[in-house]
Amino acid sequence: MKIIDGGVTAAKGFKAASTAAEIKYKGRTDMAMVFSEVPCVAAGTFTTNVVKAAPVRWDQDIVYNHPGARAVICNSGIANACTGEEGFGYCRETAKAASESLGIPEDSVLVASTGVIGMQLPIDRIANGVKAMAPKLEGSREAGLEAAKAIMTTDTEKKEAAVEIEIGGKTVTVGGMCKGSGMIHPNMCTMLGFITSDVDISKELLQEALSEDIKDTYNMVSVDGDTSTNDTVLLLANGQAGNPKITEKNTDYEEFKKALNYVNTTLAKKIAGDGEGATALFEVKVIGAATKAEAVTLSKSVVTSSLTKAAIYGHDANWGRILCALGYSGVQFDPEKVDLYFESKAGKIKIIENGVSTGYSEEEATKILSEEAVTAIADMKMGDASATAWGCDLTYDYIKINADYRS
Amino acid sequence: MKIIDGGVTAAKGFKAASTAAEIKYKGRTDMAMVFSEVPCVAAGTFTTNVVKAAPVRWDQDIVYNHPGARAVICNSGIANACTGEEGFGYCRETAKAASESLGIPEDSVLVASTGVIGMQLPIDRIANGVKAMAPKLEGSREAGLEAAKAIMTTDTEKKEAAVEIEIGGKTVTVGGMCKGSGMIHPNMCTMLGFITSDVDISKELLQEALSEDIKDTYNMVSVDGDTSTNDTVLLLANGQAGNPKITEKNTDYEEFKKALNYVNTTLAKKIAGDGEGATALFEVKVIGAATKAEAVTLSKSVVTSSLTKAAIYGHDANWGRILCALGYSGVQFDPEKVDLYFESKAGKIKIIENGVSTGYSEEEATKILSEEAVTAIADMKMGDASATAWGCDLTYDYIKINADYRS
Repeated sequence: MKIIDGGVTAAKGFKAASTAAEIKYKGRTDMAMVFSEVPCVAAGTFTTNVVKAAPVRWDQDIVYNHPGARAVICNSGIANACTGEEGFGYCRETAKAASESLGIPEDSVLVASTGVIGMQLPIDRIANGVKAMAPKLEGSREAGLEAAKAIMTTDTEKKEAAVEIEIGGKTVTVGGMCKGSGMIHPNMCTMLGFITSDVDISKELLQEALSEDIKDTYNMVSVDGDTSTNDTVLLLANGQAGNPKITEKNTDYEEFKKALNYVNTTLAKKIAGDGEGATALFEVKVIGAATKAEAVTLSKSVVTSSLTKAAIYGHDANWGRILCALGYSGVQFDPEKVDLYFESKAGKIKIIENGVSTGYSEEEATKILSEEAVTAIADMKMGDASATAWGCDLTYDYIKINADYRS
Repeated sequence: MKIIDGGVTAAKGFKAASTAAEIKYKGRTDMAMVFSEVPCVAAGTFTTNVVKAAPVRWDQDIVYNHPGARAVICNSGIANACTGEEGFGYCRETAKAASESLGIPEDSVLVASTGVIGMQLPIDRIANGVKAMAPKLEGSREAGLEAAKAIMTTDTEKKEAAVEIEIGGKTVTVGGMCKGSGMIHPNMCTMLGFITSDVDISKELLQEALSEDIKDTYNMVSVDGDTSTNDTVLLLANGQAGNPKITEKNTDYEEFKKALNYVNTTLAKKIAGDGEGATALFEVKVIGAATKAEAVTLSKSVVTSSLTKAAIYGHDANWGRILCALGYSGVQFDPEKVDLYFESKAGKIKIIENGVSTGYSEEEATKILSEEAVTAIADMKMGDASATAWGCDLTYDYIKINADYRS
């Protein structure tokens, strides 16, 4: 597997474009289009929130019931959530505009929105944006990068990843972009993600690969415990790599899953590290758990603890809060068996052993916790299962961003 | 029912004392003692956290297995949690010191600690504190008030409440104090609370009254979603009111429950309003839910949403976040039926009707949300069940307090 510089245009036959449609933001791009030269098999995973934004409902229908996806139209600024019946109409009109501009069927167009909940979409601007983007579609590195910028809201950095693998002597590429910074919590993918690949694969296996992989990647990310109404990950595969078509769970499938996992893990960590107001990526590894499900619950409980997140911001080795968060997770364990470590580029330190302090050096712990990416490792000593969750510290800027996000 | 100015010494036969034992804080009191002149029936409810502080385990044994409670010894500064086997030893030594100083059995002494997790207790200072307090015990208003101050950690205000009721021609008093500001989340009482009453009641009914009542009071409070290791509510009844003993669920029992509910509700709201860094009490009422359990889940989901809490801090009527939080609660409902209101001293406004904006005045909404206590009311239009949860806004000061709490 070869990591390459790229995003949504890295795979053969995919193009992208972006534009400033002035949907809500001024002076920046706010719409992106991803286009495949040939029909794709599509897989998708969507928010579990009962309140589902209109684009989520639109895409669920397209992914589940219509073959041959060709394009994704995404806007930032307004989420098209809680917009009543009009909301679904916007999706249809967006697809119609794309259909006319690109000469493709309406039911091959996926849509996605991110931004403020409850505002109605200015559909004329959306339609104009679609028209403006269609002639600008390009397969270049630059076009993918600009698309990744256009879908940002409170994100401070664009988020892309891409890899190449070999399948049956052919180079297969998996690339993607995502956005996500606030309203991020592990229950489905909690963000927008668009992954493209030129792999030739059956729709069933594409969906299974995605559904499996999000459990270990996006669903292990939490910025603030708020599961969004718009979470969507779309995975499009257009078969242009020319590999022997993957129709069973063979080594080719495993190789593709590895590539997909790399792209998703990289994007997931970028979301966590770019959590609203974050100064640090906070990784929580639970090892020695009795079951995988318990390891997941334990690691998520720590990564979502406001008190722990504030302590990470303060570079404070406040391990009591971590043990406390493990304790209220709902998983049964013996607190007097737990070991805890902190680790970062600056080193690794054992903080508690069998539930009590090791008498570690606070100075050394603070040094380790002062890096941009810090890891807490909890060994439950109950079994062999493990899980890793990603989050970020809780900072003044999180409050600043969210106390008046709409203005 | 008559609301009176009072706390833990309001009921007949209860005394209190406090002292500066220098356990961790300097220049302030940090120990309190509550004493009953005669043996009490005791009820208790405790944290559901798997990691239970030593005093929780001690008190569970005393409340469940030993009759005739006489005293509660509480310290602030260090939580005596995650202190291994030593931790339980401190409880025993504290009880021993109280037994000697007060001339009561060791197994009539309840203990409670609050503060930093993981530090060992300076047991000599605790024992000296007990000795210093014993001769200072008083039934005065002042003694109760000073005890309420001594148990504070990051609390900015002491928290007390008291009421009088009539039972069988006798005046019965219920009074209490509590502390709680951070690491507050509804799962058990999430704080320390000490309630005293001179009511004459059986132990079974006392426990049942308390266990029932915390579900609607302390368990509906969340400051930060972190369920503490030390949560304890103790309710002592010494029978000094001389009422006909309550041994069945008659009207006397109902009257006592009303008094207990007033004291607990008042204390619970004080905890929410004094959440770490809070500038506002945030009340969430869910009405028209299908079941009580669903109303509880829905209201807690909103009151714990970081994004909603930050919006309340910004006086921003960001209703999309509230609908979003209802949506990820796990309860099924039709988003396109929900009505939402904001209410405070400054007025009441309907923000959404049937899931979409009413086109309300943002200016008026901001005015309503600028009060010190604000309420969001969500009408699910599914049934007759309702629940109220209490929390607070999420502010810069929450981060400040928690980024470096230990130093």
